[in-house]
Amino acid sequence: MTAFTPLTPEIIAQLVTILGEANVSTARADIDLHARDQSQHAACPAEVVIWPQESRQVADVLRLANEQRIAVTPWGVGTGLEGNSIPLHGGILMSFERMTKIVAVHADDFQVTVQPGIGHKDLNEQLARYGLFFPPDPGANASIGGMLANNASGIRTVKYGASKDNVLRMEVALADGRLIHVGSRSVKQSAGYDLLHLFVGSEGTLGVITEATLKLVPVPTFMSAVVATFPSVNAAVETVVAVRGSGLDPSALEFVDAAHCAMLSQTEGIDLEERPTIFMEFQAAQEDSLAMGLEIVKEICDEMGALSFQSTTDHAARKKLWHARHHSYEIMVRSHPDKQFFINDVAVPISAYPELIAFVEDTRRERGVPSYMIGHAGDGNVHVEFPYGSPDEYEQALAVNSLIVMRALELGGTSTGEHGVGIGKARYMLAEHGEGLNVMRAIKQTLDPNGILNPGKIFPDGAEH
Amino acid sequence: MTAFTPLTPEIIAQLVTILGEANVSTARADIDLHARDQSQHAACPAEVVIWPQESRQVADVLRLANEQRIAVTPWGVGTGLEGNSIPLHGGILMSFERMTKIVAVHADDFQVTVQPGIGHKDLNEQLARYGLFFPPDPGANASIGGMLANNASGIRTVKYGASKDNVLRMEVALADGRLIHVGSRSVKQSAGYDLLHLFVGSEGTLGVITEATLKLVPVPTFMSAVVATFPSVNAAVETVVAVRGSGLDPSALEFVDAAHCAMLSQTEGIDLEERPTIFMEFQAAQEDSLAMGLEIVKEICDEMGALSFQSTTDHAARKKLWHARHHSYEIMVRSHPDKQFFINDVAVPISAYPELIAFVEDTRRERGVPSYMIGHAGDGNVHVEFPYGSPDEYEQALAVNSLIVMRALELGGTSTGEHGVGIGKARYMLAEHGEGLNVMRAIKQTLDPNGILNPGKIFPDGAEH
Repeated sequence: MTAFTPLTPEIIAQLVTILGEANVSTARADIDLHARDQSQHAACPAEVVIWPQESRQVADVLRLANEQRIAVTPWGVGTGLEGNSIPLHGGILMSFERMTKIVAVHADDFQVTVQPGIGHKDLNEQLARYGLFFPPDPGANASIGGMLANNASGIRTVKYGASKDNVLRMEVALADGRLIHVGSRSVKQSAGYDLLHLFVGSEGTLGVITEATLKLVPVPTFMSAVVATFPSVNAAVETVVAVRGSGLDPSALEFVDAAHCAMLSQTEGIDLEERPTIFMEFQAAQEDSLAMGLEIVKEICDEMGALSFQSTTDHAARKKLWHARHHSYEIMVRSHPDKQFFINDVAVPISAYPELIAFVEDTRRERGVPSYMIGHAGDGNVHVEFPYGSPDEYEQALAVNSLIVMRALELGGTSTGEHGVGIGKARYMLAEHGEGLNVMRAIKQTLDPNGILNPGKIFPDGAEH
Repeated sequence: MTAFTPLTPEIIAQLVTILGEANVSTARADIDLHARDQSQHAACPAEVVIWPQESRQVADVLRLANEQRIAVTPWGVGTGLEGNSIPLHGGILMSFERMTKIVAVHADDFQVTVQPGIGHKDLNEQLARYGLFFPPDPGANASIGGMLANNASGIRTVKYGASKDNVLRMEVALADGRLIHVGSRSVKQSAGYDLLHLFVGSEGTLGVITEATLKLVPVPTFMSAVVATFPSVNAAVETVVAVRGSGLDPSALEFVDAAHCAMLSQTEGIDLEERPTIFMEFQAAQEDSLAMGLEIVKEICDEMGALSFQSTTDHAARKKLWHARHHSYEIMVRSHPDKQFFINDVAVPISAYPELIAFVEDTRRERGVPSYMIGHAGDGNVHVEFPYGSPDEYEQALAVNSLIVMRALELGGTSTGEHGVGIGKARYMLAEHGEGLNVMRAIKQTLDPNGILNPGKIFPDGAEH
């Protein structure tokens, strides 16, 4: 574990010189607001919170921190689910809340260049006038920088890919204060090493994203929504596999288990059956092809023994049908005021999804651990959500989670589909990557030899060097 | 420049121990067959050619070469266009011509796992029975390993992406003999650094791909082909921009200039007008949507002043219409028996494509340098093909190429869209990446400290350390 230098008044003064007084705070309220994310991981206070307003300031702060051996933890808006932006080693919390500009809209190229602090929902609101949008949608109004740093995904990934598939170019500040550009606005590039994807998903441990050019797609003209329920979990998830194998191209394909449906239905205005349920969404440029697609989907669901099948192409009805899925996380948290949640995030190849889900069913039943299951089934991704109210319950959830992760890895999957490694998944990195983890370590050592960038994340020893 | 160790009888004997006698050759005929690719770059003989048959052998050879400081150049089938697999520093030429197995077909996952030496056309032939195919198509029957190492693309990239977008997991042998796995068969993964994309496109300079799991897509049910001609280059390329901006989703969108059309038409069975021409292909699951798409395309072409417009959905007619485009490279080479070709490969954001093409037109006219233009216009990618028969003509072509590359970089593009850096593009890496090039160097130094892997490629100093 590195010994980081505690912040001194001299260093604070240097930060003020770089950033201006208004962008540096040691006030308790600011420290506390940036001490934890939406996960179960414990709060940890930084020593100072700073708000850079331009790339050069980010780089200058990193140079200073690197010279002085001070930990720096980048922060988007704090919607992470794995403690990815908790300042575990104190030091500087670098918030991007004041770098939220759209730098340039390249409408003809279906591209936009932004500062990293902008929320993806705010971005999409501003892009609506161009008829374009940035498709990855993790639910919360996460910042673009945070989404890229964690390779966030969400419900539209089944059609449009993860954050890493929707970025072309970035500016990145390195630990030693250099600013580099990676990738290209050309959609094709075969010019040396793909540094772009090295920084995407590196959770701020290799460099800090200061600007990004994103790929956009046209807002779809026609959309449909489907909700179907099934007599068994297996029938539901086999339907998912069948839809994926049909050549249809859903823009969302979600699974919600019976317990979760029952819990959601306690909320006013939501009326779900307490059964394994699939939510689907389709998009098309022509209304006809949407209708033909729905026919095929209905056939598949019927064949798989669906007990109910609702579909609509009407905008308002579609919103209503999906309301429960869109608000499932908030409703779950609200329904358990005395509990915290531990959220698992494994993903497997789609053919192994039924086996994974059956394993979750069996394991939680055998262990008697209460949980909900909800997932981006079309991507082979599931979240098992464990409410807990005591250290014992937490340990039980953790034990079940570890079994699920190990099963996912055996099935050719991953310990984390979209939440990143952060603090909680570090323990699985060796099992997932084997010797590859040492290659990651070597790259970390090369780009951040003093280990100042987001220390305590990704690597199982809690310090990256 | 590293001093590599010349191969000794002792080292050859060790190679025989690892690989078996039948898989090691110092015969002149084998050396000569692996001394150059399809580019203009001069042949360079290796000291020995080896044919590993399994991953472990690849890793063992690398360990030996690393200990003994021997250059190792991986070889697919030699269809590279930038000297990427020429053994510039002699040593070991590691051919994958005997690692051509399909390891596993995961049909339900739309995935296949292969050894790196299999040709993509051979692979797709074998996948036809599953109704699936691997979409990147660089024209020649390139090996999958070579395509991944160079991040090859081709005519279907506009719809399906480059090689890097169509690979999920790889096994890679490192310079020191470790074998690692990178990526995951899960389509989603957010578990640490994206080593997969670090090795893809690294041209064998960071590690050697020994196995790859590829993404597949369903063979399309309906396809259409369009050939349209225009009164001016500008009208043709503005049409490309308009089609891209229309929300239509072409599976190919190619531009061929008048000179190239005239040259192609000298071949029996090809009847093209001597005009700027666009080739398009569309795919659909339903015949109706194909027809509606064609109507929109025709409207766009008419608006842009197209002089002719041919379209068909018939399989045979489609093949005939595209014959000229598919065979343009061979026809060009055959039409110039006394010339070699220098092929440029720049790409820009699509909005800048008309400006790039106008610059090419002006520059080659001003300089009086003969050339043909053909390109994956939908990706903003163009190839200017310069025939040359003397050192003087070569220098002229090189000078024009440099001007085009610099203009492409100014327009937000890249010096190489799909051929890789190899030997010839190394000179542009600093202009393209700036300080990022030093980050690439640092990673190279970390993963291959002795510089044994494909030395002389990518980096402008001709030796990577």
